[in-house]
Amino acid sequence: MKLIYFFDENDGKNKKLLGGKGAGLCQMTKLGLAIPPGFVITTEVCKMYYQNNKTLPKILLNQITKNIRKIEKTTGKKWGSNNNPLLISVRSGAAISMPGMMDTILNLGLNDQTVKGLATSSNNKRFALDSYRRFIQLFGKVVFNIDDTKFENVLTKIKKEYNILDDNDLNIKSLQKIIIEFKNIYKKTIKKLFPSDPYEQLYLAIKAVFDSWMGRRAIIYRQKNKITKDIADGTAVNIVSMVFGNMDSNSCTGVVFTRDPNTGDKKIFGDYLINAQGEDIVAGIRTPMHIDKMKEEFPHIYKQLMKTCKLLETHYKEPQDIEFTVEQNKFYLLQTRSAKMNAVAMIKTSVDLVKEKIITKSQALLRLHIDQLEQLLHNTIDDTFKKKINIIKGIAASPGAANGKIIFSINDTIKLGEKGDKIILVREETKPEDVPAFFTSTGILTSRGGKTSHAAVVARGMGKPCIVGADFVIDYKNKICKCNNIILHENDVITIDGNDGNVYSGEIPMIAPKITNDFKVILQWAQNIKKIGIRANADNDVAAQLALSYGAEGIGLCRTERMFNAQDRIKLFTKMIISKTTNERKFMLRKLEQLQKNDFIKIFKVMKNLPVTIRLLDPPLHEFLPNQNELTNQIHELEKLRKTNKISNMKNLLEIVKNVSEINPMMGHRGVRLGITYPEIYEMQIRAVFEAMAKLTKLKVNTIPQIMIPQVSDINELLIIKKIYDNIKSNVESRYKMKFKINFGTMLEVVRACLTSNELQKHVEFFSFGTNDLTQAVFSFSREDVESKFLAEYINKKILAKNPFQSIDKNGVGNLVKMSVKNCRKNNKNIEIGVCGEHGGDPESIKFFHDSKINYVSVSPHRIPIAIISAAQIILNAKNSIKPRIK
Amino acid sequence: MKLIYFFDENDGKNKKLLGGKGAGLCQMTKLGLAIPPGFVITTEVCKMYYQNNKTLPKILLNQITKNIRKIEKTTGKKWGSNNNPLLISVRSGAAISMPGMMDTILNLGLNDQTVKGLATSSNNKRFALDSYRRFIQLFGKVVFNIDDTKFENVLTKIKKEYNILDDNDLNIKSLQKIIIEFKNIYKKTIKKLFPSDPYEQLYLAIKAVFDSWMGRRAIIYRQKNKITKDIADGTAVNIVSMVFGNMDSNSCTGVVFTRDPNTGDKKIFGDYLINAQGEDIVAGIRTPMHIDKMKEEFPHIYKQLMKTCKLLETHYKEPQDIEFTVEQNKFYLLQTRSAKMNAVAMIKTSVDLVKEKIITKSQALLRLHIDQLEQLLHNTIDDTFKKKINIIKGIAASPGAANGKIIFSINDTIKLGEKGDKIILVREETKPEDVPAFFTSTGILTSRGGKTSHAAVVARGMGKPCIVGADFVIDYKNKICKCNNIILHENDVITIDGNDGNVYSGEIPMIAPKITNDFKVILQWAQNIKKIGIRANADNDVAAQLALSYGAEGIGLCRTERMFNAQDRIKLFTKMIISKTTNERKFMLRKLEQLQKNDFIKIFKVMKNLPVTIRLLDPPLHEFLPNQNELTNQIHELEKLRKTNKISNMKNLLEIVKNVSEINPMMGHRGVRLGITYPEIYEMQIRAVFEAMAKLTKLKVNTIPQIMIPQVSDINELLIIKKIYDNIKSNVESRYKMKFKINFGTMLEVVRACLTSNELQKHVEFFSFGTNDLTQAVFSFSREDVESKFLAEYINKKILAKNPFQSIDKNGVGNLVKMSVKNCRKNNKNIEIGVCGEHGGDPESIKFFHDSKINYVSVSPHRIPIAIISAAQIILNAKNSIKPRIK
Repeated sequence: MKLIYFFDENDGKNKKLLGGKGAGLCQMTKLGLAIPPGFVITTEVCKMYYQNNKTLPKILLNQITKNIRKIEKTTGKKWGSNNNPLLISVRSGAAISMPGMMDTILNLGLNDQTVKGLATSSNNKRFALDSYRRFIQLFGKVVFNIDDTKFENVLTKIKKEYNILDDNDLNIKSLQKIIIEFKNIYKKTIKKLFPSDPYEQLYLAIKAVFDSWMGRRAIIYRQKNKITKDIADGTAVNIVSMVFGNMDSNSCTGVVFTRDPNTGDKKIFGDYLINAQGEDIVAGIRTPMHIDKMKEEFPHIYKQLMKTCKLLETHYKEPQDIEFTVEQNKFYLLQTRSAKMNAVAMIKTSVDLVKEKIITKSQALLRLHIDQLEQLLHNTIDDTFKKKINIIKGIAASPGAANGKIIFSINDTIKLGEKGDKIILVREETKPEDVPAFFTSTGILTSRGGKTSHAAVVARGMGKPCIVGADFVIDYKNKICKCNNIILHENDVITIDGNDGNVYSGEIPMIAPKITNDFKVILQWAQNIKKIGIRANADNDVAAQLALSYGAEGIGLCRTERMFNAQDRIKLFTKMIISKTTNERKFMLRKLEQLQKNDFIKIFKVMKNLPVTIRLLDPPLHEFLPNQNELTNQIHELEKLRKTNKISNMKNLLEIVKNVSEINPMMGHRGVRLGITYPEIYEMQIRAVFEAMAKLTKLKVNTIPQIMIPQVSDINELLIIKKIYDNIKSNVESRYKMKFKINFGTMLEVVRACLTSNELQKHVEFFSFGTNDLTQAVFSFSREDVESKFLAEYINKKILAKNPFQSIDKNGVGNLVKMSVKNCRKNNKNIEIGVCGEHGGDPESIKFFHDSKINYVSVSPHRIPIAIISAAQIILNAKNSIKPRIK
Repeated sequence: MKLIYFFDENDGKNKKLLGGKGAGLCQMTKLGLAIPPGFVITTEVCKMYYQNNKTLPKILLNQITKNIRKIEKTTGKKWGSNNNPLLISVRSGAAISMPGMMDTILNLGLNDQTVKGLATSSNNKRFALDSYRRFIQLFGKVVFNIDDTKFENVLTKIKKEYNILDDNDLNIKSLQKIIIEFKNIYKKTIKKLFPSDPYEQLYLAIKAVFDSWMGRRAIIYRQKNKITKDIADGTAVNIVSMVFGNMDSNSCTGVVFTRDPNTGDKKIFGDYLINAQGEDIVAGIRTPMHIDKMKEEFPHIYKQLMKTCKLLETHYKEPQDIEFTVEQNKFYLLQTRSAKMNAVAMIKTSVDLVKEKIITKSQALLRLHIDQLEQLLHNTIDDTFKKKINIIKGIAASPGAANGKIIFSINDTIKLGEKGDKIILVREETKPEDVPAFFTSTGILTSRGGKTSHAAVVARGMGKPCIVGADFVIDYKNKICKCNNIILHENDVITIDGNDGNVYSGEIPMIAPKITNDFKVILQWAQNIKKIGIRANADNDVAAQLALSYGAEGIGLCRTERMFNAQDRIKLFTKMIISKTTNERKFMLRKLEQLQKNDFIKIFKVMKNLPVTIRLLDPPLHEFLPNQNELTNQIHELEKLRKTNKISNMKNLLEIVKNVSEINPMMGHRGVRLGITYPEIYEMQIRAVFEAMAKLTKLKVNTIPQIMIPQVSDINELLIIKKIYDNIKSNVESRYKMKFKINFGTMLEVVRACLTSNELQKHVEFFSFGTNDLTQAVFSFSREDVESKFLAEYINKKILAKNPFQSIDKNGVGNLVKMSVKNCRKNNKNIEIGVCGEHGGDPESIKFFHDSKINYVSVSPHRIPIAIISAAQIILNAKNSIKPRIK
C-alpha cells in the first residue's frame, strides 16, 4: 500500500488524499518548477494512525526511509551526515487549510553531529548553531508542548549575560551556551534527553502533526465551518528538504512579485540578497538589491526565475508573490501565493491578463475585490505618511479622505469655501438648511447621528468624505471643540478619513482617485454580463451626468426635496411650510414650481431616453425648520440684548416649529400623508414633472419620467394622489394637445404596503423598495438613534452579524421583500420593481435583490461602478456554482 | 293566479314574495294582533309590471277591488263614501329594507267628496281638510315628482295672508284656500286635474311604488350592498286601512314601551291621549296621560294592550316600543319595534327575559350592545341637564365623565387633590413623573397627543376620564388657558366627557356607574360560553383586584416601569438612569429591587393561582427625564436670577438629557436593547420576580409568574437575556433549595419578531403580541403624532375605515399576526399566544384574535366585562351563522 508520494509521483489532483499543500507541491513539481525535493505522507496514514490507537503504521517507516534516500540522491546531501547533512521541514496539510493545525518545524535532522556538518557546508558556524537552537526550541514547543517561556527566559538571561540586545547578534559562544541550556530544559520537563536521532525526530514530528488534527481548536473549527469527513478526513504530512541561500556567494534568497503591485505593470518587482536567508530580507540588516540586478549577476538564475514567474501566472491565473532561494547556483521555489495589489494594479492586471489570454473576461471580473475598488473612487490618505496623530474615531459615514481647517459656522463655511479655502465643516449635526455648506467644504465631521443621519446621507450623495457620531463636544460660542483631552480651535487643520472614521490632527497628504481607461474597459465587460439594472440616486444634473458616465441606466430615485437644499430655495421652502393659509402656501408653491420644473428639465436632458423616477416630497416638514432648543436659546439671547422687535418674530417661529414638531418624526406627518393633507404640494410637483416633459417633448428630447409616491401604507392614499395625477395629466395634455406617458408608482417602504402589495399593484406601473425605511420599520430601529446608541454593541456582541442598514437583513426585511415581490408578480409578472435604499450599493444585498427578481437597484453615483461589477460577479459566480453540479 | 294576500291569508314566512313589511303585517295578523285590515300586493306583481312594459296586469285590478271590499267589511267603512269613507295608506316593502324606495302615502282615497265624509265621521272638519291638503301634496310629490317647493310656497303665502305661524294653526278657511291652490299646481304642472277617483289614486300610487324599485338610488344601493335577485326581486305594495284616534272621545292614541326603558322593570311605560292623533303626542299640544290611567278609563282596551305587549315580546323576544290607536273603542296596533333602552335596562331585561323563559341565555347575551355597556362602567354626563356650554372638543382618550376645577400644576393637583378637591388636571402633555397627579385628579385634559399618548394610556389604565389633543394653549406662568376665544383661569370649573371628547364649562351633574347584580349574572353567563381567555393589563394590586372582581383570568401585562411612577420612586428611577457608572446604577437598582419585589408580592397574592405576565422595562429612558426645552427655559430663568449654584446642576442634567434624547424614541434605545446594554436593569427585575415568588412559595401561596421581554427583534437578543434569566434562576433556586417554574417569553411587537416567530418559538414558552407597537411599525405611523396630526383626516376621507390603533387593521397588522401565529404553531401547536395591545378591548378585534387562534387578550381592568361579553357573543354568533348552513 502506497502511503507516501514523492512530489513527482502524483499529479496533485487528489487534494483529499494529499492535503492542499501536498497537492500543490506535487502540482508545481509536475509543472517542472524547482521545488526542493520532498514527499507527502497521505491523509490515509492519519486515519490509520487513529485506527491504530495513535501509533504510526510499521510499513510507513520503511517507505519514509526509501523516500529520504530519494531526497539524498536528488540533493547530494546526506541524512544525519557530519559533512553535508540533509535537513528537512515538516508541515501539516489537510484538504482545507485549517487554523489550529500544527505549524512548520524547520531544520529537522540537526543534532550535535549534523550541526557541525551544516557549519561546514554553509561555511557559517554561527548560522549552523543558530539554526540548531531554533530547531530545539520549536521542536520542544510543537512536539512536546514545552512552555515556550522556559526557552525565552534562558535566551533573555544569556543575552543579558553577554550584553546582547538583538537575537541576531548572538555569537557562537552564547549560542553554544543556549543549546546546552535548551537541552537541559528537555531533560527537566519531559524527563528525557533531547532526541538526537534524526529519524526519531521525524517520527515524533509526524505524530505531532497527526495529533494536532484532533486538537481542540481544529475540531471546533471543523464544526463551525461544517467541514465534514467527506470534505477533509485527516491531515497529510509534507516533508521538504531544507535549502539555504546563505551557503556561499553563489547562494541568495529573494522575494518577487510577478507584476508591479502598485501599478499592475507587467514587470517583475522585488529584491534579492546574496548569501542570505529569507528572514534577512525581512530583518533589513543588509540592503537588498533590485531584482533587475540579478540579470547581470546570476543570468541563468534570472532566466529560470522569469520562466517560473510565467509558468506560475499561467497556472494560477493570478500574478504571484514568490519566495525563492538559490543554494549554490541552484534555484529553488520556496513559496508562491497570489500577489496582493492595490486597486489600480488589480484593474490593470485584470485587463492585461485577458489581453495575454491567460484569463477570460469573466475571470478578470471575478478576481476584483469590491471593497478594494472603493479606493479608485475617492481620495485616500497617503499611508506612507509617518506623522499621523489620531485624535478620535467616529463612524465612517461617507468614504474618501479630506483635509482642511475646522469651521463651525455654516455661513463661514460658505463664505470661506467659495473663496477657495479647504474646510472641514464640524457640527453637532446638520439639517437641510446647512446643505449649501456641504458644497463648499471638503469634508464633514459631526458629533451626532449614524450612517444614515442627514449629514451622512447628503455627504454620500455628493461623494464628500464624512464622519459622524464622533465623540467630541462643540462650544459654538467660543469656537472650540473638545475631543477627549485635546481642544481644537477654529482654523486648526485636521484630516478625516471617511473610509475608517479616523480623524487626524494636521494635514496628511492625499492620494487622488484614478478612473483609468482600464477601469472603463472592466466596467464595459461587467455591463455586458450583469442582468440586474443599475440606476442612480441623483437629485441634480451634475450627479446625473456623473452617474451616466459610470454607466447608470437611468435615475431610480430623484428626491425632490433635495432640490430645495440650495441656499436661495431653502428659505422659500421654509416659508411654504409655515404658511398659515392654503393661499399663502400656493403662492410660495408657484415660485417653487418654476424652479423645480427647470431642475427637472436639466436632469431629463442629461438622462434622455432613460427612465428618471421622481419621488415626491418625503421627509417630515420639521426637518426644514430650525431646532426648537436652539430657537429658545436665541430668544433668550435676544431678550438679554433687549431686541424686542426681533423677539416676537422668533417667538412666532418657535410656535410654528412646536406645532410642526413630532415625537417620532420618522413615523409622523410625512410623505404621502403630507400629499393628502396639503394636496397643493404634490399638485405642484406633479405639474412640474409634466410641464418639464412637455417642454422637452417640444424640443424633440425623449424623456421617460416616472412619478413615485413615498410612504404609502394604504391603497386609498394612492388612489387619492392618482386622482390628482390624472387631473393634472389631462389638463397639461389638453393644453399642449399632446399625450404624455408618465408611469405612476409607489415606494414600498412601509411594512403595510409590502404586506398588501398585491392590492397596490392594481393601480401602479412600478414599485420601488425603500429598504432604508423598511429596515427601520421591520426592526423598529430608528437608524439615527440606534447607530449612535447601541448598534455597535449589537454587532460586537454578535447579536447582529452586520449593520442591517448597510447589508440587507435577509431573514427579516429580505423575507418581507421576497414575499411582497412574489405577491406583486403573481398577477403581473412583468411589473417593474426596483430598490432605492442604501442597500443597493452593497454587493451582498445586490446579490439578494438579484435573486429576488428585482429589476434594478438604484445607488448613489459614486457607487455605480461597484454596483455594476458586483452585479456581473453575481452572474459569473452563479455560473461557476452551477458548473460542478452539471459535471 | 293569486297576486294579493289579505293580511290573514298568509303566514308571513315568505319574505321574498311579500316583502319584509308585508310579511310582518301578515305575521302579526296571524298572531291575532289588532292590525288595521289590509293586504299585500306581492313582489311577483312588480316583476309582471316590468315584464309588461310598466303596466299593471289586468287581473290585478279585479283582485284589488275584492280586497278593498274585504277591508270595507271588516271596518264598516266605505271606499269613496261621503259619509264614513275608507281611507288607506300605501307603502313599498321589498324583502330587504332599502333606502331610495318610495315613502308612505297616507289618507289615500280622499277627494272633494270623501273629505266631507271624513269631516262627518271624525266630527272634525279642520282635521279632514288638513288631511286632504297633506294628501294632495304628498301624492303630487311622490307620484308625479312635483317639486315640493311649489306646495311649500303656497303654504307660506297663505300662512302669511292669514297671519298664521304654525301649520297646526291653519283654520278651515285657509285650508280650503290651500286645497284649491294645491289642485291648481297639478293642473299647471302635469297638465291634468288632480285625480279624484280613489281607484285611480290607488293605481297611480302602486305604479309609483313599482317605479321606485328601479329608481337610481335604489339601484345603487342594491349594487353597493350586493343585493342580488335571489335576495330581493322587486317590491311588494302594502295597502292598510287608515284608523283615526281623533274620531271622538272613544278614540285615543298612545305610545308605550312594554318595559321601563330606563330601569328595565317589567312594567308598561308610556302615555296616551284621548281624541287625538299620533302626531299630537309628539307635538305636545296637550299633556298626555300616563298609560296606567287607561286601566280605569278604557279597561278593556288596556287589557287588550297588555295582551298585545305580551304577545309581541314573546314573538319578537325583545321589549317593544308600540304605537297604537283606538278608533271608536276599537284597538289597533299601528307599529311595533324593539324598544331602545339604556344599558341598565338592557342588562335587567336580558336577565328577566331569560327568567321568564322568553329568551335563552345566548339570546340574552347577543342582544347586548357592547358600546352601550361602556355606560355601566363609567360616570356619564346627565343628558337631561340643559345648561351645557361646550367649549372645545378634543380626542376622547379614556371613557367616563368628570368635573372639577382646572389646575395646571402637578404639585398643586397632588396637594389639593389629597385635600379632597375635585380637580381636572390640564396640561400640554404628561410624563411619567406626573402620574402621582393622575391619582389625585378626577380627570385629565391635554392639548397634545393622541389616543395612545402617555396621558391617554395611563388614564385608561386607571379608569380616569381623559381628553387629549384638545385645541387650546396654556400659559403656565399666568395660569390661564385659551380655547378659541374663551379664556379659562385656574380654579374655573369644567366638565369633561371622555366618551365623546367634549369639554363643557361649569359643573354638569354626573350619573354614577352601576355594576348591578344582573350585570354580574350576565358576566357569569358570558364567562361560561366564551373561549378566548381574558386577562388584565394591571400594574398594581388595586388594579389587579378590580380586574379579578370583573372576572379576569390573570394578568397578561404588568408593566414594570409603571411601578416606578409613584412619587417616591420616580426620583430613584431617574437617578438610576443618569448614573454615570455601572456601580452607581447598581446601587440605585438595589433600592429599586426591594420596592419592585414587594410590589410583585402584592400583585401575586391577589392573583394567586393565576398567571401574571411581567414585562421587563420597555420605554425609552428619556421618558423619565425632564423636557429639554423646559430645562433650557429653567436655566435661563435661573440665569436671570443669578442663582449660579443651581445652574451648573441644571446644566449637567441638560447635558445628560441631551445625551439620552433620541430623534425617534419609539424606535430607539428601549426595551430589550436597554436590557442588553445595561444588563443590570433586567437582572434586577428578573431577580425581583424570582424573589417574590420564593417568598410566597414559602408562605404556601401558589403563584404563576411569567417573564416577558419587550421589543425583541432578533433571536440573539432573547438568548442573551435567557442566559441572565438562567443564572438568576439557578442562583435563587440554590439559595432557597427549591425549584421555581417561571415561564420565559417575549412580546411580538416588532415586525421582524413576527416574521421570525418560528425561530424565536424554539426558545420561549409564550408569546404576546403588542399590537400597539406593531400597528405603529406596520403603518410607519407614530401613534402620538398621527393621532394629533392627520389620522382624523384619514378617517374623514375614508382612507382608513377605522383608527387602526383602536380596531385591529386586519389587512396589514392582522395578516402579519395570522402569519406569525401560523408559523409558531407549526412546530408547537400549543404554545401560549396572547395579545396585550389596546386592541384587546375592542370587540371586533377580539373576534379577529379569536379567529386567529390567539389564547387570550389582555385588557385594562375597566374593559374586562366588555371583553368577556364580546368574547361570548363571538361564540354565539358563530353558532348562529353555522345553523342556516346546516339547515
